[in-house]
Amino acid sequence: MDEQLQYQEGRTEISQLGRLALIERLTDGLGCEGDDCVVTDGTLATTQTLVEGVDFDMMYTPLKHLGYKAVAIALSNIAAMNGTPRCVLVSVAVSNRYSVEALDELYAGIRLCCERYDTSLAGGDTRTSRSGMTITVTALGTYSEETLTRRSGAKENDLVCCSGDLGSAYAGLLVLEREKVTYQANPDSQPDLAGYDYVLERFLKPEPRFDIVHMLAEAGVVPTSMTDVSRGLADALLHICRKSGCGCEVYEERLPIDYQTARVCSEMSKNMLPVSCALNGGEDYELLFTVAQKDYDKIKQMEGIHIIGYITDPALPPVMVTPQNTTITLRAQAFQGVEQ
Amino acid sequence: MDEQLQYQEGRTEISQLGRLALIERLTDGLGCEGDDCVVTDGTLATTQTLVEGVDFDMMYTPLKHLGYKAVAIALSNIAAMNGTPRCVLVSVAVSNRYSVEALDELYAGIRLCCERYDTSLAGGDTRTSRSGMTITVTALGTYSEETLTRRSGAKENDLVCCSGDLGSAYAGLLVLEREKVTYQANPDSQPDLAGYDYVLERFLKPEPRFDIVHMLAEAGVVPTSMTDVSRGLADALLHICRKSGCGCEVYEERLPIDYQTARVCSEMSKNMLPVSCALNGGEDYELLFTVAQKDYDKIKQMEGIHIIGYITDPALPPVMVTPQNTTITLRAQAFQGVEQ
Repeated sequence: MDEQLQYQEGRTEISQLGRLALIERLTDGLGCEGDDCVVTDGTLATTQTLVEGVDFDMMYTPLKHLGYKAVAIALSNIAAMNGTPRCVLVSVAVSNRYSVEALDELYAGIRLCCERYDTSLAGGDTRTSRSGMTITVTALGTYSEETLTRRSGAKENDLVCCSGDLGSAYAGLLVLEREKVTYQANPDSQPDLAGYDYVLERFLKPEPRFDIVHMLAEAGVVPTSMTDVSRGLADALLHICRKSGCGCEVYEERLPIDYQTARVCSEMSKNMLPVSCALNGGEDYELLFTVAQKDYDKIKQMEGIHIIGYITDPALPPVMVTPQNTTITLRAQAFQGVEQ
Repeated sequence: MDEQLQYQEGRTEISQLGRLALIERLTDGLGCEGDDCVVTDGTLATTQTLVEGVDFDMMYTPLKHLGYKAVAIALSNIAAMNGTPRCVLVSVAVSNRYSVEALDELYAGIRLCCERYDTSLAGGDTRTSRSGMTITVTALGTYSEETLTRRSGAKENDLVCCSGDLGSAYAGLLVLEREKVTYQANPDSQPDLAGYDYVLERFLKPEPRFDIVHMLAEAGVVPTSMTDVSRGLADALLHICRKSGCGCEVYEERLPIDYQTARVCSEMSKNMLPVSCALNGGEDYELLFTVAQKDYDKIKQMEGIHIIGYITDPALPPVMVTPQNTTITLRAQAFQGVEQ
């Protein structure tokens, strides 16, 4: 009866395709825009799911932070379309390992993030799960036709910009995983998290960058394309280049990387480079966007925005240029399932 | 570090609260409408998640049916608001147990249901899961202010109506579970599903009742309240009575129950009553609605719509009257987590 899973001949492993190629195969010919949100009837809509054991580890994730983060990363997709958040629907599946008080904590974080971004919690559902917790947040927002920003509008010579810094959330995750291993080896040990406050907050409590959205609006700058950096800079750049039909060139020395990120990397291994955290780490939820050259003067003086490169000819691949002037072609990470 | 889960003093088990009470506690004071969809800026939005091992069993769920059902049950919430479906976003989390071809099958069902209900597949995402598959479908729709139907509008003396029949999806599940046990005891056995085609289809491939929505519209009937029957008739009636601030009286002999449902119950156990399947079985995705007395003549001649009772004084509880004239108070089922 389980033959649909056991059938081997002609079986293609998901890992053989890249994640983007898989999504394109499954949605081929359906006119999916592939933006951070769906745009329909004046509304932006997006769904984000966090799965225990995959997207978060209860060993080191406070429930209030988890609730905050679940809402924040959904709202980040509204920000990435240059939109305004309106409301969220939250669906939580939990096993009976969780108490009502634990759910109260989770919802305290959900409410806090909603309040912070002037968004109403319009619906909540709680369901049974076989094990662990799964949180799905659907965020809805509005937009104006004049300023709606998709992934597909980048043009040759546009400037490539990003907000904040990159790789710090992943650095925070590395610290938490290190302390988890230490704790498991010796449960009497106390976690040593001093001096890592910035990277820990970046991982545990990300913020959607509506401050950047507002700053651009006040300056009268409408990005030509935009997305949020949820799976690393390389993935975000590839999305924009693929949807816009262009290449890009970004400069390694231009990538904004916090000193705590660099410090964590140097502690971990000499092979762990900060630039790898920025390119492939993910979970930063910063905005990556392109602007026309005419907006250069406005952009260059904005605090917290970094010009990291420019858009190139469609015939060229997306690349990063190192300080040694080596050109590295950016690639999507492989899709990896963790179940063996 | 795991103390937030192990903390015992003051711990309230989720099972101590009913599911509705839990949701009301978590969303207290937030102005959640508690309808089948969120209504915002002219758009209806709803999210439905199916979790492997909880909501479906790969032993007997063809992937194409699963994809169809995931979309159908999300669209059912749009129907329950008297709305028109526009598009869906699909998020699938899978482990590497699944092949690309398996996902092709799943998406064939997703596309089929979208086409059947003139709905576009506006976004798709595929993510890693630690084990098994989780499918989340967000459905968006439109509505007109004049015909939008919430759970909260039922008035005393309104007629309580439902579409189709009740309990048949649960009967289908019972048959599949019985054959699974037989197969596990003897893997050489062939499943014996002859004569159960109707209840199996009800469980494996439900349909959102837009035909009923259209029939009501053509007759010029706007229900005073509506919801879909996703967790059994009792749960649906309780939702309407709670949100409308009323009681209700439904008649057991009026409940529409298919003969296959009755037959499956009689095969299972003498204690398995068809009416229990209707009240508590769930997954029927029929529409439960109330209409004003003035619409009685229109409603009574509509095929596939059954008048099962009427709305009572707010001081009275929701009850079912048996053929022996016994009055049974309807209660919500307890929330049960399956993880021990």
